[in-house]
Amino acid sequence: MFIYLNLFSKMIKNDLVLRAARGEKTERTPVWLMRQAGRVLPEYRATRSRAKGFIDFVKSPDLACEVTIQPVDILGVDAAIIFSDILVIPEAMGLPYQMIESKGPWFERTIKTKADIEQLQIAGEEQLHYVLDAIKLTKTNLNDRVPLIGFAGAPWTIFAYMIEGSGSKTFSQAKKFLYTQPELSHLLLEKITRSTIHYLKAQVKSGADIIQLFDSWAGVLAPEQFYEFSLQYINKISEAIAPLAPVTVFAKDAHYAIGKIAQGGCNTIGLDWTIDPAKARAEAAGKTLQGNADPCLLYADEKTIKKEVEKMLRAFGDTKYIANLGHGLYPDIDKEKVKFFVDCIKSFKY
Amino acid sequence: MFIYLNLFSKMIKNDLVLRAARGEKTERTPVWLMRQAGRVLPEYRATRSRAKGFIDFVKSPDLACEVTIQPVDILGVDAAIIFSDILVIPEAMGLPYQMIESKGPWFERTIKTKADIEQLQIAGEEQLHYVLDAIKLTKTNLNDRVPLIGFAGAPWTIFAYMIEGSGSKTFSQAKKFLYTQPELSHLLLEKITRSTIHYLKAQVKSGADIIQLFDSWAGVLAPEQFYEFSLQYINKISEAIAPLAPVTVFAKDAHYAIGKIAQGGCNTIGLDWTIDPAKARAEAAGKTLQGNADPCLLYADEKTIKKEVEKMLRAFGDTKYIANLGHGLYPDIDKEKVKFFVDCIKSFKY
Repeated sequence: MFIYLNLFSKMIKNDLVLRAARGEKTERTPVWLMRQAGRVLPEYRATRSRAKGFIDFVKSPDLACEVTIQPVDILGVDAAIIFSDILVIPEAMGLPYQMIESKGPWFERTIKTKADIEQLQIAGEEQLHYVLDAIKLTKTNLNDRVPLIGFAGAPWTIFAYMIEGSGSKTFSQAKKFLYTQPELSHLLLEKITRSTIHYLKAQVKSGADIIQLFDSWAGVLAPEQFYEFSLQYINKISEAIAPLAPVTVFAKDAHYAIGKIAQGGCNTIGLDWTIDPAKARAEAAGKTLQGNADPCLLYADEKTIKKEVEKMLRAFGDTKYIANLGHGLYPDIDKEKVKFFVDCIKSFKY
Repeated sequence: MFIYLNLFSKMIKNDLVLRAARGEKTERTPVWLMRQAGRVLPEYRATRSRAKGFIDFVKSPDLACEVTIQPVDILGVDAAIIFSDILVIPEAMGLPYQMIESKGPWFERTIKTKADIEQLQIAGEEQLHYVLDAIKLTKTNLNDRVPLIGFAGAPWTIFAYMIEGSGSKTFSQAKKFLYTQPELSHLLLEKITRSTIHYLKAQVKSGADIIQLFDSWAGVLAPEQFYEFSLQYINKISEAIAPLAPVTVFAKDAHYAIGKIAQGGCNTIGLDWTIDPAKARAEAAGKTLQGNADPCLLYADEKTIKKEVEKMLRAFGDTKYIANLGHGLYPDIDKEKVKFFVDCIKSFKY
């Protein structure tokens, strides 16, 4: 067993998420929701309207702190996740981006050559102080009610944006780079990995109690590409961070990789809603599992939500499990339904 | 065994695809490519420039015939697939659409209520004569060199566009309809299924030798939703069409469903590039398999393409297999690389 150096966790009143991540038995199943600090809450939209735009919002520790704590108060979730964006890493390395309304992120410069990669800096605390400030402020204001989750994009997902320059259904340009420039790809992934390790260590030092890596675009890769260009870098990060705080790996749509992810140093594996809980349990070799309700379930009536929640909780079992969705909350979901979903989980008895 | 009523297939010179689909041994592995009649060929772009727009292109049998035959001549593939669009079915049922450059399909009206569903007509030959005319003309001009593949969207995928009104990363509105209006959903899916069966029977009567169902958005569904709202309708179509011509089911990203799809009446199961061939073979209960190279592989150098092709062919084995990509060709792929990929498959010796 690792000895966790983060002393905060010892003082947290509701530490269900941390104990479940460490594989310990919990009195009930803990729950939090991806994108819980998001547009599903009117309170979030009100706070956001005080920022000049998305990037300004992300860079305002007081606003980030406010929306991070909102779902703990309003939804009663068992963890807060720091409000930020995975693309702060490319920006800190030297590739600024804009968030274009209803289109998503857009980079004016992308990575094309070895020189482009060499010009990138390894991100450090100085470029990302605003996230660390937000974590410190949130830690103070949360008052140790629940753990605070820190996060970063997995290196492949960050790489994909740096090459493609925007969102994409296929990320075919990023994949083209993998196929045509494998050595440069590793050079860039290595640099992103080093930046991410610095960043996540600083997050833990600033107060993050648990870390999640989002490999949002794992699903566009073929399995062998995922192992070579994504998972080995995820594992490097897990090895560096897991001695400091539990690490969750969420590789969306990498349905074939659960067993391989479980061989790495993470504590918890996030699952999307296409994954059968029993199959995941069989393949995950004793790791904690997190997920995996379909976000669209929250459009259904309460009876349906309750039935599906109970099925999910029974399928995952009463230990080594953190309830969540299989993806982020969609903005048009009714807040009351989200609260009902959380309450169903919290009141469930095995 | 079914007795195939389509007499055309008996006269086809290169009938490798048909024989593989029926599970018969073939001298070599047959190959065709999804989106082979597409922007990857300069000849396609030249033909397309003669149409007034995408919809006009789809509705011009002479132009559709031309681009359908091009890849047979230029790439040497073992089948032609009729150039058309899956969205001709919603249009024929009463929901016209536009194809907006670099944005995709857009429907001015979508399905919201029971009355909307009741107003839709069951599509018949009269609404879709232009596709049938294109098939007849292609059949004549192909001169029985290779089989002609007909196709349709699977009912769930057509439903998804009819509700959502456009492409979407999540199809959350279409899924919301499944969760909130399950009875109306079945009513609409039933109507789409009836239209699709009429349409595919007419395709076979017009000369299509083999049929593929594209469930392009299977991957957004949770497994139980896929079985209830997609696969049962796919199976109804397979049962109606397989006595007339072999049927291929390609449910993209439904990685968990291969065994269940194999229990239906289709002949061939299409696979995307995240699926392990050995796993698919074990689950597919004797069905023919089709796929599953990553389209981005064709960005690589010839040595890499050859190595990956050989690995794929060995993994699938020498019978009950039709080589293809795991998705459509991307428009910026070099035509010569596509030809090289096809040639590698055609010259491979087990």
